[in-house]
Amino acid sequence: MDVGATGEFGLIERLAALAGRPAPGLVVGIGDDAAVWRAGDAFVVATTDTMVAGVHFLPGLHPWRDLGWKAMAVNVSDVAAMGGVPEFALVTLALPPDTPLAAVEELYLGLDECARAYGVTVAGGDVVRARELAITVALLGRAQTDDEGRPLLLRRDGARPGQALAVSGTLGDAAAGLELLRAGTREGPLVAAHLRPRPPLALGQQAARMGVPCAIDISDGLLQDLGHVCRLSGVGAVVRAGDLPLSHELRRAFPDRALALACSGGEDYQLLLAGPREALERLSVDADVPLTLVGETTAGEGVQVVDEEGRPLQLPTSGWDHLRRT
Amino acid sequence: MDVGATGEFGLIERLAALAGRPAPGLVVGIGDDAAVWRAGDAFVVATTDTMVAGVHFLPGLHPWRDLGWKAMAVNVSDVAAMGGVPEFALVTLALPPDTPLAAVEELYLGLDECARAYGVTVAGGDVVRARELAITVALLGRAQTDDEGRPLLLRRDGARPGQALAVSGTLGDAAAGLELLRAGTREGPLVAAHLRPRPPLALGQQAARMGVPCAIDISDGLLQDLGHVCRLSGVGAVVRAGDLPLSHELRRAFPDRALALACSGGEDYQLLLAGPREALERLSVDADVPLTLVGETTAGEGVQVVDEEGRPLQLPTSGWDHLRRT
Repeated sequence: MDVGATGEFGLIERLAALAGRPAPGLVVGIGDDAAVWRAGDAFVVATTDTMVAGVHFLPGLHPWRDLGWKAMAVNVSDVAAMGGVPEFALVTLALPPDTPLAAVEELYLGLDECARAYGVTVAGGDVVRARELAITVALLGRAQTDDEGRPLLLRRDGARPGQALAVSGTLGDAAAGLELLRAGTREGPLVAAHLRPRPPLALGQQAARMGVPCAIDISDGLLQDLGHVCRLSGVGAVVRAGDLPLSHELRRAFPDRALALACSGGEDYQLLLAGPREALERLSVDADVPLTLVGETTAGEGVQVVDEEGRPLQLPTSGWDHLRRT
Repeated sequence: MDVGATGEFGLIERLAALAGRPAPGLVVGIGDDAAVWRAGDAFVVATTDTMVAGVHFLPGLHPWRDLGWKAMAVNVSDVAAMGGVPEFALVTLALPPDTPLAAVEELYLGLDECARAYGVTVAGGDVVRARELAITVALLGRAQTDDEGRPLLLRRDGARPGQALAVSGTLGDAAAGLELLRAGTREGPLVAAHLRPRPPLALGQQAARMGVPCAIDISDGLLQDLGHVCRLSGVGAVVRAGDLPLSHELRRAFPDRALALACSGGEDYQLLLAGPREALERLSVDADVPLTLVGETTAGEGVQVVDEEGRPLQLPTSGWDHLRRT
């Protein structure tokens, strides 16, 4: 068997079984958006994400500076999904030797632009030769803590039956933007959503301070990422299709496929939160980004999308798998 | 200009100029073996290193389990060179979809074997599809601290004129092992030195506790890495060729090239220390690994290798550059 047959999530489960183990100080290990461990009286939040040319971006279509922005932003998104505060990054560039110096500098300026926007400093990294371009960012920060010094964390396994589900921003724009980009469009809000995701970092931090127990960042498509939450929390979920936040631009550009893109498109880098309804309603009023209640968790299992009368809709539930052949 | 012309070190300097800046809490930024920043009352030590198939290892020649060991060990070496304590790792695997699952599991077992040997727990990571196999480890830990809570660090820029230079273990074995491996040899101490480097972590920690100010890990060849220390510390260095620790195996296998391999071979993952002579002499008695005094720093600049009469020897000083064309 090869890893293309196992798939990303099957492989991660097998590797976690080989190497994942409790350790002194380890608060959150393999399987959440980021790892968390104790360092003195602080809690380190740590994540890493890679972008590979031809797999995660289209060389020639993705401007270098935007590529740098995105390589940092997808990591900020993971820290946001823990309710953490990103602080320092290690950046690894794998570069073909014929990569233009000016391109690498543009990429790095974009990385640093995103870093500054989210309060991050690049503190180190590695530069290696490779046949294909890849950018790996390890992003480190800290958890917020309560008055007694305990970490305030949003966790994938934190949902309980009967809680509300909420998503930030709008969904499906980035997937639509990728299609437009491939078809020759170079600007507009959908393309921008694909090229320059803006994870709602302050929202995640605010949710953690309010005691919201559960979040995941929507990177592989709402239904797939919600599926992870359900599996890890031992709950089911019902999503009301009519309540999903779809942008005007998405509805206009893809009138027939807007809902499918919002459910399974991927690369939104928005937050999905689960928690007490009152808390999420209060948060939706206070937050500096749109936050929309879209459904509930249940005592069942699996994810169901329903129409206005509560009838199940058939939608593609499979989002992005980094290893499976397509 | 492309990055093959700039070279690894030229590129890192340019990128550091773009993104490197002081930040609250940042103690050591771009340019040392690892970055260090404050987290509450602790100091985080963070490094990352990548191994790319066909660049850093020979697919087919490097057994999977050893490859995993080495991917972790080269990062442990960076933490050792700061005098730090490694604790948690994030592991990113970039895998062609046809990679056998059994191979990835072997690799992961080797990674974890090295992790356990050095007290490290794998806490997370990423798995992505790619055309070529690459393993990136981000290794995080903490600095040792003195009674007043200040970090005890070995730094590349910590050397002063008139100090002694010392190296751990023996040099050149790994480079010799690579040549033997390429020629068909599959075992023996030289091959093992290449496949399974064992960085002297406890030595680095002991040196930091004793107040030794300066270290670098010898990854790109003694002369090149000593060159970094000289440039960053603003000193020169004299190395006595006759005092360099060469193994019997190296002398026997490469009688004519043993010295050249020891000076420029690379991938030793030993430590080069600079500091007061008495401290290094005491350390060489106390340490659990061999530590050999090999020279002195001077008020000049550059690195000179001399024979028993003090006459300069001509040796290739260029070690490994990850980007330059060869």
